[in-house]
Amino acid sequence: MSKKSVIVALDAMGGDKAPKIVLQGAEIARKRYPEMKFIIFGDTAKIRPHIDKRRQLAEISTLVHTDVVVSGEEKPSNAIRGPLKLSSMRLAVEAVKNGDADCVVSAGNTGALMALSKIIFRMLPGIDRPAISSFFPTLRGESVMLDLGANIQCDADNLVQFAVMGNVFARIALGANHPSIGLLNVGTEDKKGHDELQEAHARLSDANIPGKYIGFIEGDDIASGKTDVVVTDGFTGNIALKTAEGTANLTTEFLKRTFRSSIFAQLGYLFAARSMRKLKHRLDPRRYNGAIFLGLNGITVKSHGGTDGFGFANAIGVAHDMVRADVKDKIKADLAAVENF
Amino acid sequence: MSKKSVIVALDAMGGDKAPKIVLQGAEIARKRYPEMKFIIFGDTAKIRPHIDKRRQLAEISTLVHTDVVVSGEEKPSNAIRGPLKLSSMRLAVEAVKNGDADCVVSAGNTGALMALSKIIFRMLPGIDRPAISSFFPTLRGESVMLDLGANIQCDADNLVQFAVMGNVFARIALGANHPSIGLLNVGTEDKKGHDELQEAHARLSDANIPGKYIGFIEGDDIASGKTDVVVTDGFTGNIALKTAEGTANLTTEFLKRTFRSSIFAQLGYLFAARSMRKLKHRLDPRRYNGAIFLGLNGITVKSHGGTDGFGFANAIGVAHDMVRADVKDKIKADLAAVENF
Repeated sequence: MSKKSVIVALDAMGGDKAPKIVLQGAEIARKRYPEMKFIIFGDTAKIRPHIDKRRQLAEISTLVHTDVVVSGEEKPSNAIRGPLKLSSMRLAVEAVKNGDADCVVSAGNTGALMALSKIIFRMLPGIDRPAISSFFPTLRGESVMLDLGANIQCDADNLVQFAVMGNVFARIALGANHPSIGLLNVGTEDKKGHDELQEAHARLSDANIPGKYIGFIEGDDIASGKTDVVVTDGFTGNIALKTAEGTANLTTEFLKRTFRSSIFAQLGYLFAARSMRKLKHRLDPRRYNGAIFLGLNGITVKSHGGTDGFGFANAIGVAHDMVRADVKDKIKADLAAVENF
Repeated sequence: MSKKSVIVALDAMGGDKAPKIVLQGAEIARKRYPEMKFIIFGDTAKIRPHIDKRRQLAEISTLVHTDVVVSGEEKPSNAIRGPLKLSSMRLAVEAVKNGDADCVVSAGNTGALMALSKIIFRMLPGIDRPAISSFFPTLRGESVMLDLGANIQCDADNLVQFAVMGNVFARIALGANHPSIGLLNVGTEDKKGHDELQEAHARLSDANIPGKYIGFIEGDDIASGKTDVVVTDGFTGNIALKTAEGTANLTTEFLKRTFRSSIFAQLGYLFAARSMRKLKHRLDPRRYNGAIFLGLNGITVKSHGGTDGFGFANAIGVAHDMVRADVKDKIKADLAAVENF
């Protein structure tokens, strides 16, 4: 069975250890998805050493040279206009717009990538604002959350649209058939939270949206996996995501110190090492790398800037799955169903 | 050296396992603070069995009977008016107002306790709104955060006042001499976040507030302990606190499963058990129990409703420290210093 290729536009210059991690990630992804092809944008002098030693990757890759790079500190608006018009990031996004590629993956400046994706792809009909979404481990498997930082303030319309898009993302990324959806709040009673939340709650309760809206959920319900989809504004979502990351770091750091704290504990670690490696794997943030920008008429996936090749390959994997599952068409179809209600 | 007694008004009927945990907590606190006395409000028929077997506690306690209880589900406004006027919670707060007690501790309905404390104590001069504050473990020791849920929306004035109050709380509760203060945001650049945050940031940067204002911090800085004080609005603070609790539960649950996952891991646990108990102690939420309502002209400490006697005793300890250190006078003095700026 031969499949149509998925062509991935890669911004080779984004991320702390670019372009190395980008090429390492592409090599891992190549093995996972044998039909994949790449268009790689960036400084060929820097990319060459990494691709020349990967003959099979070189065969399925097209290199496009530019030495213009959007730095991590650049203001997003600068990425759109002026001398950065030929940046590797911008060229990669435009490759999708032009039909040369199916999706773009970058580990660069999030704000710039979002600004470029918005202005080049534009919004899907019926969506007012894009949302950043990703998935994470919970006690009950995995869940998705959105928005993780695209919109500091959101109205009820935005939140309802996020619920519809999150539901599509959970079906594709988690394989959930009929995802449950919760609206993040400071309590589960109907009257809790500010006006936007109350209005979104009323509309989600009434609208026959795809998936199963269960109402308000609280911060501790995120990690318990109470719902497959966690809907919130970009300010709250960003704080919650980073607070969770910080807390996970804290507990694993305390655990490391514990195992080093005595000779008995060190011995204990030796016995438990195999199981501990499984735990480490389970909580490995690289496994959950790859945040999609939902609501755009194009597929953009943002990799964590500090990840390695393994993590970057997972971000490529998210983009691949979104292309294969036609995420844009599914969002359009689901939105149409809600609006007909 | 004899000290003046600290008299604690206890709402014996608040919390999942009241009044048992309240009396257990009082007994532990009695041993820690030999000069402490209690006024215990609640259903004496239910309290008696727990106090009769603790002779020394009975000697330093005054029981005040009422069979009116504010349930966990009660609307806060109902706790103020009507038939709940004689509730154990209200009588305990009034005991402080009347000068019969120095502080009140309750594990009951948070919203009701806040509403009663506000209406009975009133605000300190110069403070517009109270904030709920508590402390938690970080990689660098302990930090405090506020507001944890009293105010869903906050303006720049509120946030500046929270910074001043959090600084006082950190000095008392953590023993920090010159606490560092951060304003929770979705990025550390000056232009990040909504208007209230920008304005609060500008004013905190200009004002010579006590402590050391270091600017914006992000969600992962909470657990890393980047600052001694984390300032945020009550919506964000509540979400962050509960997200952190949920994530800590997730990692410890995964760790438990890991140790049970094979015979080798179980053996490993046996060797490491002593160190693991230390880790468990370090992360034990009961150790961080006791949230103070700052900004009121009276000292109210809220215990977690699901805690046990050990946790409740720690909430009593927070109240004790706030009385001994004159938290209200310190806030007034610090506020005066800022306003003179």
